[in-house]
Amino acid sequence: MRATVMHGAGDVRIENVPDARLVAPTDAILRVTRACICGSDLWPYASMEPSETGQSMGHEAIGIVEDIGPEIRALKRGDLVVMPFAISDGTCEFCLEGLQTECVHVAFFGNNGMNGAQAEALRIPYADGTLYKLPVREDDALMPSLLTLADVLGTGHHAAMAAKVAPGKSVAVVGDGAVGLCGVIAARRLGAEHIIIMGRYPDRIALAQEFGATDVVSERGEEAVERVRELTGGHGAHSVLECVGLNQSTETAINIARPGGAVGRVGVPQDDLMPSSQTAFYRNITVGGGPAPVRAYIEELLPDILEGRIQPGKVFDRTVGLDGVPDGYRAMADRESIKVMVRP
Amino acid sequence: MRATVMHGAGDVRIENVPDARLVAPTDAILRVTRACICGSDLWPYASMEPSETGQSMGHEAIGIVEDIGPEIRALKRGDLVVMPFAISDGTCEFCLEGLQTECVHVAFFGNNGMNGAQAEALRIPYADGTLYKLPVREDDALMPSLLTLADVLGTGHHAAMAAKVAPGKSVAVVGDGAVGLCGVIAARRLGAEHIIIMGRYPDRIALAQEFGATDVVSERGEEAVERVRELTGGHGAHSVLECVGLNQSTETAINIARPGGAVGRVGVPQDDLMPSSQTAFYRNITVGGGPAPVRAYIEELLPDILEGRIQPGKVFDRTVGLDGVPDGYRAMADRESIKVMVRP
Repeated sequence: MRATVMHGAGDVRIENVPDARLVAPTDAILRVTRACICGSDLWPYASMEPSETGQSMGHEAIGIVEDIGPEIRALKRGDLVVMPFAISDGTCEFCLEGLQTECVHVAFFGNNGMNGAQAEALRIPYADGTLYKLPVREDDALMPSLLTLADVLGTGHHAAMAAKVAPGKSVAVVGDGAVGLCGVIAARRLGAEHIIIMGRYPDRIALAQEFGATDVVSERGEEAVERVRELTGGHGAHSVLECVGLNQSTETAINIARPGGAVGRVGVPQDDLMPSSQTAFYRNITVGGGPAPVRAYIEELLPDILEGRIQPGKVFDRTVGLDGVPDGYRAMADRESIKVMVRP
Repeated sequence: MRATVMHGAGDVRIENVPDARLVAPTDAILRVTRACICGSDLWPYASMEPSETGQSMGHEAIGIVEDIGPEIRALKRGDLVVMPFAISDGTCEFCLEGLQTECVHVAFFGNNGMNGAQAEALRIPYADGTLYKLPVREDDALMPSLLTLADVLGTGHHAAMAAKVAPGKSVAVVGDGAVGLCGVIAARRLGAEHIIIMGRYPDRIALAQEFGATDVVSERGEEAVERVRELTGGHGAHSVLECVGLNQSTETAINIARPGGAVGRVGVPQDDLMPSSQTAFYRNITVGGGPAPVRAYIEELLPDILEGRIQPGKVFDRTVGLDGVPDGYRAMADRESIKVMVRP
């Protein structure tokens, strides 16, 4: 079968690899009908050390269950499912708490040797816990929006939850990638009326506004902080969604938060030392978040997609086949595309 | 009048200074009947640059209202009051939210030129908002416990709140100073049954156990992390109270938190870069806290003191007059004393 393998920074190849096959009795094989490229895939695309074996890429998918191990109970061949970006067994104490990304068996697709979803098919460990069966057909027009349940919509929602978004709160979203844009949707869903998007690309800003952003701040650093304060009565935003992961963006996120407010971070931190720790402390700002338990959020978010109240699928502005994946990475890295959908 | 002035690291003097007097119409003058030395006073005691003018010290007091400005409404001469460590006007949006340490007029007694409470008297700005009238007499036997309402008990409670302590949760307290010990009281009050104190001084450990600690971890660094994991079913504590503020203690606090758990920090961070940011992220650990709005917590904590359910005053193991204050600093810095009470 064919799959996407990254061999180093800027080096993405479509290769013939051994067919995905069942290994454990709790496995399933997923034939991928939709996958996509994630903003977080751009980190290794920018900096991965050269590797002969490479890393199979992709952690978001919708597909058809093609085969199941003997211990699978919740799925059958032919089911159409969403594949969240993390494996979760569905039975451990963390899964039962709705924190599937802390599952005792957690692993991330397309990471640290795990198989990836930018491929014709892949093996899904703990498939009963990991996959979520969709109540639609493979050719449903809502497919792009449903695909965001695998990561970016749930991740934006997680940022909003960690940032304690609630009716009447002011919200600022740092990062205008697909996750940030989904953060705007999530903030709006949770009742925020004042939503500031921090970004500078006109297409992204326009989409953010369509999703519910009420203000745009295109400045950076100190100037951005000043602008957000001006827009929020001088004190900053109650809730800040950090959807980038760089030190500068984290610093901005903390500095635009209102005293007593919260920063929900979902951008993977690129540094182990968090800046502005003293500012966060003196202002009683809470910093939370992490890998989103998107598996837990599907139940809540799915009806809004099915009933047309939200259209997160609009973050996809390009669709490619497997052969188009390498150029898809380039297009996203060059900010030519917000998010690329893959139809293997 | 006489007051404590710090002129540099290790250089604490009792000096004659001009009498405290009303300046603004919302001021009161407090005659101090009880004050104390705080663990946070030990930071400048260890590192303050030499200063000719010096810094008036002390931010915790109980005292008698000796004079009031013309706009004071809630207080009268002769009232016995607690003085929380921060000024709060009682009317701004933050005060109304119960976050008095983010008051738009906030300032900390005995800091950045503000007058201090290790003195015969001091001026209290925004006295109506800042001071809390006590329903007891000046010679009440509960005075030591009531004095902890000015800082350490409310601060321990804030750490527990930020760490989301709740019935059935496991709690670890990093730091065995007066705040950490009050954190044990707070955790117990909030229903935690499993409370681990991290410390190594026998007198402090004994007091922590009296206050409700169920386990003691005296190791540090990696070994401490291992021990806490062993004590918490392998995953770490739901709630961690960081009551020190050093990088090492913060790192330990994050690393002993259970995935999905929370660290409530009240130790003043000595570094602007927070360690273990990636660990906190990957484990979905929330880091919150800051200067405690102890003024807001008095209402909740006072009845437990008055009715004898908690005895936080036991953190005081030494009492001095003003002349004994310099040696009180030394005794606390040398870990000879947990916390020193001052009777000016």
